[in-house]
Amino acid sequence: MANHVYKSIELTGSSQTSIEDAVNNAINRAAKTVRNMRWFVITETRGHIDEGKVNHWQVTLKVGFTLED
Amino acid sequence: MANHVYKSIELTGSSQTSIEDAVNNAINRAAKTVRNMRWFVITETRGHIDEGKVNHWQVTLKVGFTLED
Amino acid sequence: MANHVYKSIELTGSSQTSIEDAVNNAINRAAKTVRNMRWFVITETRGHIDEGKVNHWQVTLKVGFTLED
Amino acid sequence: MANHVYKSIELTGSSQTSIEDAVNNAINRAAKTVRNMRWFVITETRGHIDEGKVNHWQVTLKVGFTLED
Amino acid sequence: MANHVYKSIELTGSSQTSIEDAVNNAINRAAKTVRNMRWFVITETRGHIDEGKVNHWQVTLKVGFTLED
Amino acid sequence: MANHVYKSIELTGSSQTSIEDAVNNAINRAAKTVRNMRWFVITETRGHIDEGKVNHWQVTLKVGFTLED
Amino acid sequence: MANHVYKSIELTGSSQTSIEDAVNNAINRAAKTVRNMRWFVITETRGHIDEGKVNHWQVTLKVGFTLED
Amino acid sequence: MANHVYKSIELTGSSQTSIEDAVNNAINRAAKTVRNMRWFVITETRGHIDEGKVNHWQVTLKVGFTLED
Amino acid sequence: MANHVYKSIELTGSSQTSIEDAVNNAINRAAKTVRNMRWFVITETRGHIDEGKVNHWQVTLKVGFTLED
Amino acid sequence: MANHVYKSIELTGSSQTSIEDAVNNAINRAAKTVRNMRWFVITETRGHIDEGKVNHWQVTLKVGFTLED
Amino acid sequence: MANHVYKSIELTGSSQTSIEDAVNNAINRAAKTVRNMRWFVITETRGHIDEGKVNHWQVTLKVGFTLED
Amino acid sequence: MANHVYKSIELTGSSQTSIEDAVNNAINRAAKTVRNMRWFVITETRGHIDEGKVNHWQVTLKVGFTLED
Repeated sequence: MANHVYKSIELTGSSQTSIEDAVNNAINRAAKTVRNMRWFVITETRGHIDEGKVNHWQVTLKVGFTLED
Repeated sequence: MANHVYKSIELTGSSQTSIEDAVNNAINRAAKTVRNMRWFVITETRGHIDEGKVNHWQVTLKVGFTLED
Repeated sequence: MANHVYKSIELTGSSQTSIEDAVNNAINRAAKTVRNMRWFVITETRGHIDEGKVNHWQVTLKVGFTLED
Repeated sequence: MANHVYKSIELTGSSQTSIEDAVNNAINRAAKTVRNMRWFVITETRGHIDEGKVNHWQVTLKVGFTLED
Repeated sequence: MANHVYKSIELTGSSQTSIEDAVNNAINRAAKTVRNMRWFVITETRGHIDEGKVNHWQVTLKVGFTLED
Repeated sequence: MANHVYKSIELTGSSQTSIEDAVNNAINRAAKTVRNMRWFVITETRGHIDEGKVNHWQVTLKVGFTLED
Repeated sequence: MANHVYKSIELTGSSQTSIEDAVNNAINRAAKTVRNMRWFVITETRGHIDEGKVNHWQVTLKVGFTLED
Repeated sequence: MANHVYKSIELTGSSQTSIEDAVNNAINRAAKTVRNMRWFVITETRGHIDEGKVNHWQVTLKVGFTLED
Repeated sequence: MANHVYKSIELTGSSQTSIEDAVNNAINRAAKTVRNMRWFVITETRGHIDEGKVNHWQVTLKVGFTLED
Repeated sequence: MANHVYKSIELTGSSQTSIEDAVNNAINRAAKTVRNMRWFVITETRGHIDEGKVNHWQVTLKVGFTLED
Repeated sequence: MANHVYKSIELTGSSQTSIEDAVNNAINRAAKTVRNMRWFVITETRGHIDEGKVNHWQVTLKVGFTLED
Repeated sequence: MANHVYKSIELTGSSQTSIEDAVNNAINRAAKTVRNMRWFVITETRGHIDEGKVNHWQVTLKVGFTLED
């Protein structure tokens, strides 16, 4: 583990149900093209309001993945 | 959309069940007097502990709304 | 209340299901040895990813408790 | 001046031309209902992109005004 | 307490004598129009200098109050 | 809009005339290879000085774009 | 001095009179159980409001002390 | 370049027309007494409001210059 | 006022009695060599502890002064 | 230089010997696929502990590179 | 790993030779009384100057350790 | 010590070998004109990259010194 180099990217996922679901949506989408994802950290939690109610959650996260040798 | 002016206010909502519910409670209460709310961003997530358990969640958020012309 | 002195400590709890559950796990564990916990504030929300999915959530929180006289 | 109490509010103005113009638009709109505005400080400068070009600028500012006695 | 929704506003009070007095002046002025104020947090402490001496202190604070149902 | 996943990247653009122009230069260059850019936020504004005058402005911005399904 | 290792803890003291007094109260209480305290730094200054007046000040500070060999 | 030592100072320039002009005014004034200025970074953008309009812009910047050997 | 250029410097003053007194001590000392000081802002409040009591307060402040033409 | 557009990416390098070595490892790895790297800035320095000793250092850095025309 | 609860403490280590050595000194001292330390993160790097030279380095770090069940 | 007033200045030193050496270079250069330097704190660690390798380190630090009476 000590020899790995990681790269991190910033993503924003959305969900109409919860913060956790928005994170999952971002990671699921990223998994289509990024391999070896290891960790994430949430950097912002926002959302849109429509007709006086939360319409959807928007969660921004940094995702780190191992660069293969 | 480019011509709008927004104002944002800071609210704190509470809930005994979840972070999302605390946000909804704050927005529901604000909707009684504030029209045209568009977005929110969470700025702090706290809570009270009673008898060694989370008693309720307190979530602070900025809420932005359009100022009517 | 005005005469109390509080101490705060920093904990990180984990959960495979939600942010709220990770907070509960940290506070439950702390309650074994710390009395008079009053409040918490979340300072970081991270997680581990395995096989392109969130494997577990890791939430760091400060917990404040009253120092007895 | 030493005896004044100020209140500050947060606004976001937009413009298709410049950052300065977005600030002016926010202050012009606020002047319809707020008297005695004295200063502002920019807290965020964002914008929307359309077809690979900046479509409009969005500048968030705190505006301070004197509370009359 | 778990069901309350709070709003917070930002004020700046001044005093020629002390930081505490500047906070008191801001809260006294706000009490004329805002009910149910519960807490404050200082966000900035500044001041003006005249003839090589502090002329007055300017303290900015967020003040939270309960929104009535 | 609730179902989109966004990625954001960090760019620095330069200009000898203005902050706005430096932002435009960065976005114009990015548009050659990045599609579906939606928003930006300025994170730093710097510049180089030559012979006691501003030689050019350097503006760093995060740019968000939609990841296509 | 160059060989010492310090530990720092976070405390919150309260007072009905002043910020300085709240700091003193926190340090006095800590001195009952912590030896070799060397310095402190204030990290937050808050307070409670009752009937439109400051009821008590709450000051959070980090306190550093030498770990004995 | 690797052997240089830089010092940086903090200035605030003003202008009735634009942010860029306020930066230029600060650097022009500093150039009367400071040699070898190399770069600047904006740390705050504020302004004064008079009669509901921006009266002048105030931009604070750090300016770095080479210390001569 | 719109045409002035300000420079700001960082000072730390000490006092055995109060935060305000530490600020005054820093400004009094600076007034021996710096003219036209206009404002200050506190950036850090620390102190030394001796025998379980506050021995002296150390307050760091930025001080702004007008550069004469 | 005024006409360049830079992109920056975030990397984490590891080393069992020093902070500098961890930075070098990250940049060496990136150089396999990224051309025209110009500068870096360290944003976090962490490490893993094993058996009461530092096992390896983990340094996170932003790396900027010129986008070719 | 998902079920662990971590506690983190803040330490400051010193060294006359290097930043890395100051970190090692802090962790070595802590290992006398704290078991199961897993990670650290540097939060501040300072030092004392004597006769125009660095006399010793002072590095502050958070150290996380597993709370045993 | 309680009666001293300190001033702090910001410097950036460079080195081709290490972070510590860059700090030493900055302090050595400052010692030519500044007396009574007491402490420093690192505020930024950057560097230049040439041909895919670190060419030199650039470390920015605040340096505090006693103002003589």
